[in-house]
Amino acid sequence: METDQAWLPTAAFRAVGSRHTLVHGTGPLVDTVHRELAAGCGRFGGSVVRGAEGGGSCDLVLELGGDAEALGDEGFTYAREVGRTTVTAAGQRGLLYGLFHVVRLGEEAFHGERAQEIHRPTTALRMLDHWDNVAVHPVMGQVERGYAGGSLFWADGWARGDLERVRAYGRLIAACGINAVAVNNVNVHETEAHLLTDRIGEVADIAGALRPYGIRTHLSVTFAAPVVLGGLPTADPLDEAVRAWWAGATARVYEAIPDFGGYVVKADSEGRPGPFADGRSHADGANMLAAAVAPHGGTVHWRAFVYDHRQDWGDRTTDRARAAYDHFVPLDGEFAPNAVLQVKHGPMDFQVREPVSPLIGAMPGTRLAVEVQATQEYTGQQRHVCWLGPMWSEVLRFRPEEGVSVGELARGGLVAVSNVGDDPFWTGHPLGQANLYAFGRLAWNPDADPGAVLDEWIGLTFPEAPERLVAGLHDVLDGSWRTYEKYTAPLGVGWMVQPGHHYGPSVDGYEYSPWGTYHFADRDGIGVDRSAATGTGYAAQYAKPWAELYESPETCPDELLLFFHHVSYGHVLKSGKTVIQHIYDTHFEGVEEVEEAREVWASLAGLVVPARHARVTELFEEQLRSAREWRDQINSYFFRKSGVPDAHGRRIY
Amino acid sequence: METDQAWLPTAAFRAVGSRHTLVHGTGPLVDTVHRELAAGCGRFGGSVVRGAEGGGSCDLVLELGGDAEALGDEGFTYAREVGRTTVTAAGQRGLLYGLFHVVRLGEEAFHGERAQEIHRPTTALRMLDHWDNVAVHPVMGQVERGYAGGSLFWADGWARGDLERVRAYGRLIAACGINAVAVNNVNVHETEAHLLTDRIGEVADIAGALRPYGIRTHLSVTFAAPVVLGGLPTADPLDEAVRAWWAGATARVYEAIPDFGGYVVKADSEGRPGPFADGRSHADGANMLAAAVAPHGGTVHWRAFVYDHRQDWGDRTTDRARAAYDHFVPLDGEFAPNAVLQVKHGPMDFQVREPVSPLIGAMPGTRLAVEVQATQEYTGQQRHVCWLGPMWSEVLRFRPEEGVSVGELARGGLVAVSNVGDDPFWTGHPLGQANLYAFGRLAWNPDADPGAVLDEWIGLTFPEAPERLVAGLHDVLDGSWRTYEKYTAPLGVGWMVQPGHHYGPSVDGYEYSPWGTYHFADRDGIGVDRSAATGTGYAAQYAKPWAELYESPETCPDELLLFFHHVSYGHVLKSGKTVIQHIYDTHFEGVEEVEEAREVWASLAGLVVPARHARVTELFEEQLRSAREWRDQINSYFFRKSGVPDAHGRRIY
Repeated sequence: METDQAWLPTAAFRAVGSRHTLVHGTGPLVDTVHRELAAGCGRFGGSVVRGAEGGGSCDLVLELGGDAEALGDEGFTYAREVGRTTVTAAGQRGLLYGLFHVVRLGEEAFHGERAQEIHRPTTALRMLDHWDNVAVHPVMGQVERGYAGGSLFWADGWARGDLERVRAYGRLIAACGINAVAVNNVNVHETEAHLLTDRIGEVADIAGALRPYGIRTHLSVTFAAPVVLGGLPTADPLDEAVRAWWAGATARVYEAIPDFGGYVVKADSEGRPGPFADGRSHADGANMLAAAVAPHGGTVHWRAFVYDHRQDWGDRTTDRARAAYDHFVPLDGEFAPNAVLQVKHGPMDFQVREPVSPLIGAMPGTRLAVEVQATQEYTGQQRHVCWLGPMWSEVLRFRPEEGVSVGELARGGLVAVSNVGDDPFWTGHPLGQANLYAFGRLAWNPDADPGAVLDEWIGLTFPEAPERLVAGLHDVLDGSWRTYEKYTAPLGVGWMVQPGHHYGPSVDGYEYSPWGTYHFADRDGIGVDRSAATGTGYAAQYAKPWAELYESPETCPDELLLFFHHVSYGHVLKSGKTVIQHIYDTHFEGVEEVEEAREVWASLAGLVVPARHARVTELFEEQLRSAREWRDQINSYFFRKSGVPDAHGRRIY
Repeated sequence: METDQAWLPTAAFRAVGSRHTLVHGTGPLVDTVHRELAAGCGRFGGSVVRGAEGGGSCDLVLELGGDAEALGDEGFTYAREVGRTTVTAAGQRGLLYGLFHVVRLGEEAFHGERAQEIHRPTTALRMLDHWDNVAVHPVMGQVERGYAGGSLFWADGWARGDLERVRAYGRLIAACGINAVAVNNVNVHETEAHLLTDRIGEVADIAGALRPYGIRTHLSVTFAAPVVLGGLPTADPLDEAVRAWWAGATARVYEAIPDFGGYVVKADSEGRPGPFADGRSHADGANMLAAAVAPHGGTVHWRAFVYDHRQDWGDRTTDRARAAYDHFVPLDGEFAPNAVLQVKHGPMDFQVREPVSPLIGAMPGTRLAVEVQATQEYTGQQRHVCWLGPMWSEVLRFRPEEGVSVGELARGGLVAVSNVGDDPFWTGHPLGQANLYAFGRLAWNPDADPGAVLDEWIGLTFPEAPERLVAGLHDVLDGSWRTYEKYTAPLGVGWMVQPGHHYGPSVDGYEYSPWGTYHFADRDGIGVDRSAATGTGYAAQYAKPWAELYESPETCPDELLLFFHHVSYGHVLKSGKTVIQHIYDTHFEGVEEVEEAREVWASLAGLVVPARHARVTELFEEQLRSAREWRDQINSYFFRKSGVPDAHGRRIY
């Protein structure tokens, strides 16, 4: 089948394509703006002219030349007066985003009056990290944690020759505000290491395909590069030869890709090499690389996902949740200005429910980027509908300290692990596109209402949809994250997944493992005591009021109770239910909600393109099977362990 | 390193190689006998002559010409009179086995007098099944459930060009009495299917290398061969075209390999194709293949490993243990004389402790072969010392009905899944060789004392060993199976292993799975009720007295209690201990026994070839680590579930 048009279907350009537009300004991204408009006008009968100030006949003016101070490179003003819509931008990127703003508005952009609005992203860097391998990894495949087919960029050991889909991808993600892409897996294996040096040409080709949409290309590199590529005896970041090697290698990268974004580094994490080998700190490591890219305007994204992955499960004093804070907070203030510490939004690893990482807010002297996971590793692997907008919105609006939200604290950027592959629907599950779109829009404006973003996505992806379809899609998606939470791991406990591939339930799958991911369920109760008073002390890593709130089971929010506390099955939640009855109820409810969503989807047949409807219908069968499996295993496990019968006498095996 | 000589080291031929021997008779296997002797004499100064009746100067006579009726093709007589040792055989194979008997006796064969003894195998077919893939399987690798490197026969998609190791292998296994080898995995994948037709030449080469040691070659085939290889629309065993296709294909196999042994078939088992697809019975399927090989003297080994591997774990009425009996007993009497039903020794799948399959003894009108597993899939994967002689001996001496043992009932043969690969020590763990040897010797004589077989193996493998070494080796090996049982799954419950690869503990790993392998542990008790009165009725598949013995928890042997009954943790065993205390005690004891064995092994340094000592030492580290992991997980799991503290206050996490 042909590649799906996602949120830029032909009809999305109907309004703008049937108008008369003037484009003022020059430059490659202005050319892109013009090309987009010309294509739309070719289909819908409008016209577009370039160059000098146009006459009064134009419906739309897109002009370069606004207030650079106020707008920056990416902002734009939008106004409609006396029958003309005007977008003004100081930078070319701003003009492109202004065009897509007009496209999103559709007919609304050409009616009535509108006082000038300023649109400017909260976050300067809005990035997708692709965990794509160049060579197929024997265990992880072409895309690590990828659920949408192969890689857009790589196939069987080499860059794809045909970059048409990469261009289409750049266009799609620019339309929702993304401006950076890291093109390879943070776990840099042998083949991928060479992208930095002798295979930089392949990266340059990809960068060339993304550049017309204002997207800078980044590269994941191995900290051991000076050894494995450079033949040096050490990768010590304070060694002069190592620093010189990185400086030289980086200069050659910029020769090939003048607007190269920078490096992404996973170091001393899950077995990857890093500065610890030479007794150096993470700041030493990050700053050495920052020095290499600084002369060229590049940035280093240094991941904070550092923990002991060979933990003794019998030792309850070690707490993986503490690790990032414990490792990095002492280094606050030591990182170079162009070194960004990239922090996962929660302290563990993209579970369906986690508290916000206490690291965010605890490093005022460091540029932080916050990383979320669009690829649904722990949230249904793009076989389940699980719209993550509400989760990300909760994270971004969370205020670690009074007044300042995570979205604002993420001065180093917002990053999502990509959920895209070479699947015709881009994301495997066609409704998974909503996550990609929502990430871009929330990265641009972390305060945006996720429900409004969802409706925006529906409006664009299903143009001219009848109300019944719009309402049905909203129904199916809007509560899907909470539904997924209900039928999987309860009350913030997480991790009850099959080891390795992470799909499907296994309550004890990680319980006796070295990964630091435990629930400590016994016949009396469940949960991890992370209080300061009697537990691991993790709760004290937060500032007030959170440290106090999380410290006590009486004040801790229900949805995080088992993350912070070990309580009895009979413990009464704020909802008035006991923990065990909550487990039973949510698991029955979760399955019922999937059944309902499947019914709603079925009722939309005829309103959705058949191939798309069929794909989602098929996936709902698997989601329902899997949700029932979750329900039955979780309920059986806890019934067998607690001995407490379901208050409603439902069937538990 | 050079390939290990296992139980045929150079010194094993010292006694016979320093004597004067006459070989009388002709034929290829007589040539082999002569070649073996000539090589020994070349090293140790003896002599060997062939042909006419020799003079009085011979120490040893090996002669063809005994009583064919009494000895069969494989038996021989052994006697020593007036300073001369005489072996007489009616068939060439018998003469070869007589030679190895003399080799085993060593100096003892040349002293004193010995009245004539008749040696004859109880079982006509003593077979090793190799689960070797031709093409490396993406999940299972070159050898499915192989823990000794690659395959002896195949590498990367093709038969090995150099068959020197295959010849050496044939010699080794002939020396312990094996006379048949199936050269490929019973799960016949796409590449392997072609061995039957266009790639039979590769099998013929292997058969040629094994033939000089009296070993016939067998082939695993796919039941779907007429479809996948022959292009027919069906594999229906009653379809004339299908029957004709098999007849033709089989005739071509025998053209290539005139002494071809026959087919091994896994049909309608774990997703393999079989006669069910066409509504035919297993007898229909087996008999159709039996008809194809009958004109050529071949045999079909039809595996009885048939069960529902997509079971609903919530349904406690279905019992995998019942499956083989339920499927096959109704077919008793329907199988052709050259169709052998190959039954695993237990009803499940090679767990460390299972009852003997009730199928054995319940099909008097069918030729049965009994299959054991030398490859240590569930018994430590050749990283743990686990000598299986005592387990196999218990199985073979078990009497399903009064008077007749399993060893005698196995009229169709005794089969072991091979534990051999291209590892220099043959079996990965050097002490794993003892299992291969013991299987051959027990297949020849199922009544043999396993302790004597162990000492025989020690004597051959470590020739001229000091008493301290002999005693140490005996110590390390003799109780190792029971030690392994202690630190793994208790009281016959089985299956508490990591899913997929089956190494290491995971108590619930298969508990909520479709594989039919459950323990049903809850906060009150554990075990599977297989009684007739209140359970699945499996116990009633046995004849008396076993049906009665297993029916009640009062009479059921402790070691099988949880296989047959669900009991409370407080249930008192015949040993006087509660179930829960038994679990704790055996797990602490098991680890202590591994620690002791490791100490014994360490004390043997200097008495064992360094490479061999080092390999075992290294493996003991892993065994001890793993045993502790088992102990801690199993004890923690049951402590958390039962809430019962250890009576001795030992550390449980």
